[in-house]
Amino acid sequence: MLHVGINGFGTIGKRVADAVRVQPDMTVAGVAKRSPNFEATIAVDRGYDLFAAGQDGDEPFHAAGITTAGTVGDMVEASDVVVDTTPGGVGETNADLYADRDTPAIFQGGESADVAEVSFNARANYDTAVGADTARVVSCNTTGLSRLFAPLQESYGIEKARVTLVRRGGDPGQTGRGPINDTLPDPVEIPSHHGPDVKTVFPDLAIDTMGMKVPTTQMHTHSVNVTLESEPTAAEVRDLLGAESRLFLIPETLGIDGAGKLKEYTRDAGRPRGDVWENCIWAESVTVEGRDLYLFQAIHQEADVVPENIDAVRALSERTASAEQSIQRTDEAMGVGQGLVQHESEPARAEGTADD
Amino acid sequence: MLHVGINGFGTIGKRVADAVRVQPDMTVAGVAKRSPNFEATIAVDRGYDLFAAGQDGDEPFHAAGITTAGTVGDMVEASDVVVDTTPGGVGETNADLYADRDTPAIFQGGESADVAEVSFNARANYDTAVGADTARVVSCNTTGLSRLFAPLQESYGIEKARVTLVRRGGDPGQTGRGPINDTLPDPVEIPSHHGPDVKTVFPDLAIDTMGMKVPTTQMHTHSVNVTLESEPTAAEVRDLLGAESRLFLIPETLGIDGAGKLKEYTRDAGRPRGDVWENCIWAESVTVEGRDLYLFQAIHQEADVVPENIDAVRALSERTASAEQSIQRTDEAMGVGQGLVQHESEPARAEGTADD
Repeated sequence: MLHVGINGFGTIGKRVADAVRVQPDMTVAGVAKRSPNFEATIAVDRGYDLFAAGQDGDEPFHAAGITTAGTVGDMVEASDVVVDTTPGGVGETNADLYADRDTPAIFQGGESADVAEVSFNARANYDTAVGADTARVVSCNTTGLSRLFAPLQESYGIEKARVTLVRRGGDPGQTGRGPINDTLPDPVEIPSHHGPDVKTVFPDLAIDTMGMKVPTTQMHTHSVNVTLESEPTAAEVRDLLGAESRLFLIPETLGIDGAGKLKEYTRDAGRPRGDVWENCIWAESVTVEGRDLYLFQAIHQEADVVPENIDAVRALSERTASAEQSIQRTDEAMGVGQGLVQHESEPARAEGTADD
Repeated sequence: MLHVGINGFGTIGKRVADAVRVQPDMTVAGVAKRSPNFEATIAVDRGYDLFAAGQDGDEPFHAAGITTAGTVGDMVEASDVVVDTTPGGVGETNADLYADRDTPAIFQGGESADVAEVSFNARANYDTAVGADTARVVSCNTTGLSRLFAPLQESYGIEKARVTLVRRGGDPGQTGRGPINDTLPDPVEIPSHHGPDVKTVFPDLAIDTMGMKVPTTQMHTHSVNVTLESEPTAAEVRDLLGAESRLFLIPETLGIDGAGKLKEYTRDAGRPRGDVWENCIWAESVTVEGRDLYLFQAIHQEADVVPENIDAVRALSERTASAEQSIQRTDEAMGVGQGLVQHESEPARAEGTADD
């Protein structure tokens, strides 16, 4: 049984802890937090050992009537692997905390790539992280693109990818973020940082990315163009992608037009927090013009990296024979790729509106 | 002096009327409307002769205490050219109204292309409309793309264009439209109707477009990729585009990050209704990778087609020697390309954020 500590219990950390808890080969060694906010009460309610990570130690927790099990250093000592889910840029300041205790550590995509030996995506480059001391699970958007590019690269070859990432302004709880009633080129410079980040996973890929921010909180939406090296039919591409456990091809028959209905669907299906761990690709959008493939996909920024963190834990600890075995085990335990209808038939074409 | 009637006094019609009024060679023959809403009071206040266009004739206007000058048929009789600005799909039902009176007519981009002899953009194909009986001014988005593609095609050649159009959900007054807190692939099918619509102006252009809708009301935002047939530098492209009167290259120094600040800028500058008639291209976004050009542009859906309608009036009436002469006259009278700082210097590169 692998003892996994989680440093940070916010958007990603609480989801990683819950995902560790349901794995047959892992247990939660503890979770570390700085402040006794609502998420601390959730940690207590879940029965996780709570460790104090802030400068004031356990004082703020005691003041709030919350019992801690020690400091974050104690948690690291008790862990076989630590998953650092602290805010972007904070993770690297924790690197010595893990290294000094010889504890393998996983960082998140908000850190720069040089925080770890390898930038990780389970489907694309699991083997590069096997036995490493540190790995960085790439960001939600890079994870979403890596899962898509891996099978396309293997089956058809990729000449060049061009992606526009229409990003949510903030998560539902990030009330201080914007924009309101505006679409921002963000960053204005091209390429956005996403293209170079994808190249930390696919070093030889030709890719240009453009980023925007819009007043939504639910999911990112990508408009994807991939110029392939061969010329499959759209149906062949749908079959290829539909066979991937972490890609959900939304059938036209479901009547799902955006992130709102997607997340209502996963709430209806009983997913914890309504999480969408899979890339959600609109099946009817999958189009091939010559060697140019186009599609739309939505990425749940709070959730898609969670199964990747679980696989990264296994890779670092060398406990699993292969990427396929880890992915299958993670997916079965969490329910990834389950409970949602998969692509069933060729969709009919509907007429678009033409007023703008 | 050309007598121009405007059928429809909504978002586009009221702007076209005001633009006709300031032209040295045109006068407003009248405006026609169905209902006595707030815009009818504006028409009266402006001193435009108001003609009743609805099934109940002038009855609703009399009930509201507004005097009319007759019916829409009377207005058409009194006009040398009519600009039809009724809602998308309504225009074609008015075609006989104009044809029966031998009055040249201009339709808007919400109509299907076969409503008129030619789909029109002043910069791209003015001459095709000279002396025609009917023309269709293409939609706001198609206008924005045509203005951009014309100089690129002439100077560098276009191998293929790929555009993602992140569209505003509705205009500020369209309170019944959405989405709220969602990004919709719209249409989900690829290509969206915009690509084929651009081909009504550039029949031989290779173009694929993808459409989305987001919860904003101010402007559309395009992420544009054009694979050119030659390989200019980004600076050369900026110089080329900056020389076009209907393209505004936003200098980085202005600190304009989106549509909100853009429209605040034009309100500050004293533009009527804060209108942005020009494509607004972020100068720092203009990037060339090999033969791939990338840029972001914002399009004010309520305003960019207005100067094009004025030019279309001149083309149909054969009163002007050339496209250049009409465009210059329109721009001078309205103030298009004036009062806004043009691109001045090579922008510095800023760092993007990397948290998603």
